[in-house]
Amino acid sequence: MDWVKRSSDYTLTDGKSGFSINFAGMKFDEALLSTLSGAFAKASAGIADIEAGKIKNPDEQRKVTHFTDRISYPASPEFAAVESFAAKVISEGKFDAVVVNGIGGSALGPQLMQFAVNGPYWNELPKSKRHGLKIYFLDNTDSSGFADLLEVMEPAKTLHLVISKSGGTQETKNNMIAMEKFYASCGLDFAECAVAVTMLNSSLYQHAKANNWLEIFEMAESIGGRTSETAIVGHLPAALTGIDFGKFLAGACDMDAWTRQSDYRNNPAMFLAAMWFLAGNGKGDRNMVIVPYSDRLVLLSRYLQQLVMESLGKELDLDGNIAHQGLNVFGNKGGTDAHAFIQQLNDGRDDFFATFIEVLQDAKSLEINDGVTMGDYLHGFFEGLSAALRSKGRQTITIRIPQLTVYELGQIIALYERAVAIYAEFININAFHQPGVQAYKLAAKDILALRGKVLSSLTGKSGFSGDSNAFAEIAGVPEKAVEVAALLDKAALNNGAVSREFNGKNWVYTVK
Amino acid sequence: MDWVKRSSDYTLTDGKSGFSINFAGMKFDEALLSTLSGAFAKASAGIADIEAGKIKNPDEQRKVTHFTDRISYPASPEFAAVESFAAKVISEGKFDAVVVNGIGGSALGPQLMQFAVNGPYWNELPKSKRHGLKIYFLDNTDSSGFADLLEVMEPAKTLHLVISKSGGTQETKNNMIAMEKFYASCGLDFAECAVAVTMLNSSLYQHAKANNWLEIFEMAESIGGRTSETAIVGHLPAALTGIDFGKFLAGACDMDAWTRQSDYRNNPAMFLAAMWFLAGNGKGDRNMVIVPYSDRLVLLSRYLQQLVMESLGKELDLDGNIAHQGLNVFGNKGGTDAHAFIQQLNDGRDDFFATFIEVLQDAKSLEINDGVTMGDYLHGFFEGLSAALRSKGRQTITIRIPQLTVYELGQIIALYERAVAIYAEFININAFHQPGVQAYKLAAKDILALRGKVLSSLTGKSGFSGDSNAFAEIAGVPEKAVEVAALLDKAALNNGAVSREFNGKNWVYTVK
Repeated sequence: MDWVKRSSDYTLTDGKSGFSINFAGMKFDEALLSTLSGAFAKASAGIADIEAGKIKNPDEQRKVTHFTDRISYPASPEFAAVESFAAKVISEGKFDAVVVNGIGGSALGPQLMQFAVNGPYWNELPKSKRHGLKIYFLDNTDSSGFADLLEVMEPAKTLHLVISKSGGTQETKNNMIAMEKFYASCGLDFAECAVAVTMLNSSLYQHAKANNWLEIFEMAESIGGRTSETAIVGHLPAALTGIDFGKFLAGACDMDAWTRQSDYRNNPAMFLAAMWFLAGNGKGDRNMVIVPYSDRLVLLSRYLQQLVMESLGKELDLDGNIAHQGLNVFGNKGGTDAHAFIQQLNDGRDDFFATFIEVLQDAKSLEINDGVTMGDYLHGFFEGLSAALRSKGRQTITIRIPQLTVYELGQIIALYERAVAIYAEFININAFHQPGVQAYKLAAKDILALRGKVLSSLTGKSGFSGDSNAFAEIAGVPEKAVEVAALLDKAALNNGAVSREFNGKNWVYTVK
Repeated sequence: MDWVKRSSDYTLTDGKSGFSINFAGMKFDEALLSTLSGAFAKASAGIADIEAGKIKNPDEQRKVTHFTDRISYPASPEFAAVESFAAKVISEGKFDAVVVNGIGGSALGPQLMQFAVNGPYWNELPKSKRHGLKIYFLDNTDSSGFADLLEVMEPAKTLHLVISKSGGTQETKNNMIAMEKFYASCGLDFAECAVAVTMLNSSLYQHAKANNWLEIFEMAESIGGRTSETAIVGHLPAALTGIDFGKFLAGACDMDAWTRQSDYRNNPAMFLAAMWFLAGNGKGDRNMVIVPYSDRLVLLSRYLQQLVMESLGKELDLDGNIAHQGLNVFGNKGGTDAHAFIQQLNDGRDDFFATFIEVLQDAKSLEINDGVTMGDYLHGFFEGLSAALRSKGRQTITIRIPQLTVYELGQIIALYERAVAIYAEFININAFHQPGVQAYKLAAKDILALRGKVLSSLTGKSGFSGDSNAFAEIAGVPEKAVEVAALLDKAALNNGAVSREFNGKNWVYTVK
């Protein structure tokens, strides 16, 4: 079929918003699509079940209600409370910055939204150009990130959001404890600057309550981390930085409405999931490369990486069979990536499909020559790359949005949330749990316990020297010499109980 | 073999710098390694040829001399000229910021170095804490990135580096032209703020000369974009922002020296390339996931993505056979990623190997509880994840560095540069050209030409309405209706020659 007809047949457009998605660059035909009719029906029923509030996360016996929660959220007292809290903070002027302390789903969405809507230099803007607080993120448990923040933070003028649904996320807790100690060391009361976002009666909730924190916002049990951007987790940072969160929800809800249609030909989420399925043989055999032609969307691939991979990367299917599913996601931004990894997409392994996102309206009209603007060049590079890839038989999807505002961001996020839920129905997995992260958390606890054991075994051993095997022996864990070595390395480099020297083959440690 | 013995056998350590790399978590044994003896010999000879100045980029008839150039660079007059220029700029105080205008290899290295060495908030630091200029990047041709920069840039106090080896990179040229126009519109002389980094007599060189720019730094023909970080491209931004570039080169050169050894057991670059080869069956069948446990190394994966994929993602081997080689790279930072995509690595597709980088020395000692610091927790999470992955049979490599300074950054970059060159010898490809990017550049020119044709076909057609097929017909290119539609969409959204309305199925365009 020729490209004109194929594009016409396989482009889905929402005339009202101007959002369109063109699947014509993917390798499929009507016969192949028709093999999915059963899958489409199953997915439609599955999504209807989600929206009807059935238990769709059986492991955790949880409903998954983000698609419907966001319909009612804007008219709720909870929404009004966030808006009025943010308006008060901004108008009172006591705080000039907000630190979001959260990891994974508690940070990736707010980071994406800030960069996309307020731009890369928001914090550097003079106050007159900034309609809200500066914003920083503590999204790890790295003392380097913490130390870097302290270099620019004015403690008395900084509001802290501590976001953890369960209240027990260790990384977030660590940053909270370190920040409480830092405030105490400055003679300041952290509680006056602290806001918790967590479930009712979680340990964080109780801690905030007991210490009389400035505010506590409750997080519903039904909100999942990686789908929390349209709930309080996205709302509070947005509102504090002057972003119209209602408009974001409108974008998401409009996309939800569009993608509720049972005919996949009128449902871009269903069609998108079908493309993923066909491209990767239902097993994720092709990487999803996300290339937005938009500097402000450079974090989109990182956001989608979590949404897609944490949702779909599962060992077991819903019947308990070994499935080892997944779908890799990476990418940065076009046209920059064309000067980086896209050499491989053009010429190398044919193991991917590229998803392009084009923003039609230029942020600024900058004429380069003879009436040709910078935006025309960017468009030319995008179309050029798209054509070059197709000419090599590589697969592409193109999303076009008229402009990039928080509304279109809502559409994009909702589209991918729904495509993920649909794809999960196709492959019969639970998209809403993350059982694989428990193992490493337990193993991490073992390491901290081992650390205690090793350090206490050094008592009274001042001057003792040996390699890691000798120290593992002393601690009674000869089989753990590798882990013991790493703990001794940490100690040696951080003024701990030992020093180390290299003997040409191994590190030799000496107890101080 | 047990983990203790295996780690001991397959960890390579440089006692002087404290750099170590542990391959024990990869699936290989002595028998498999021995199958590579011919490949190791070929690679040793190939690298020796590179360092002896033989033509190793036959397509472009170019030597590839970055490994040896950096030995002599620090003592060269060119090095001294950059240092004294930067020292003068910083001490005179006329400029408070520098804009790096460059794309791909001209931006990724400087961005990585800034983030790793000066940290995420460098531009926000008060001048008293900043030992150099603020730094911004124009690394695309997106008017949004340009507009965002204008919001924070003080034109009279901003120095501009325009970096393009050939001088003809269109994206860089566009930003230069737009910036020249902006300065003219402010009544300022761009030439007084402008520095070119380019080859002798390139179009950029001539433009800078003719307009009497502040300074021109020459770029040697032998420098490749993605291996330019240890040359002038890395040096000038580093020096202007107070980074000790000599120390960076020392790190790179020390790693070069270590990895010149012909026995792979004493050569981490050779061993690393062997691991890539074995893990991916010599065809890149496993994705390389880069997870530095360091907030400041979050851009490393993006840098390596270019270095690895642009170098290895090739259609043909050196004998002209179709090879479709490549090696996918992605990742962000640990432990954050454990709350994002690492669910899939633990449970999902076994189609990757993870490379961890641990920084032993904590940036700050932050006690969380009972003598356990934030750094101890990060270490625990890293070791926990590493153990969890191994227990599931997933493959890992671990790099450890004592601290993260510009020296260790030099070591890491050199290690990967050399592993890439060695791997290219294994698979018999040219790692130093990028033939796949020509096709899209040509196709982009076609789009701009089509744009001219379409727009001129509208002359005298005011009031005409129709869908994209009708407009393509008028322009005499009915087979280009898809590309014409996109051009009309751009025009409609940017106050161009047409408006558009959706008729329920298609966009209908009307000539203004």
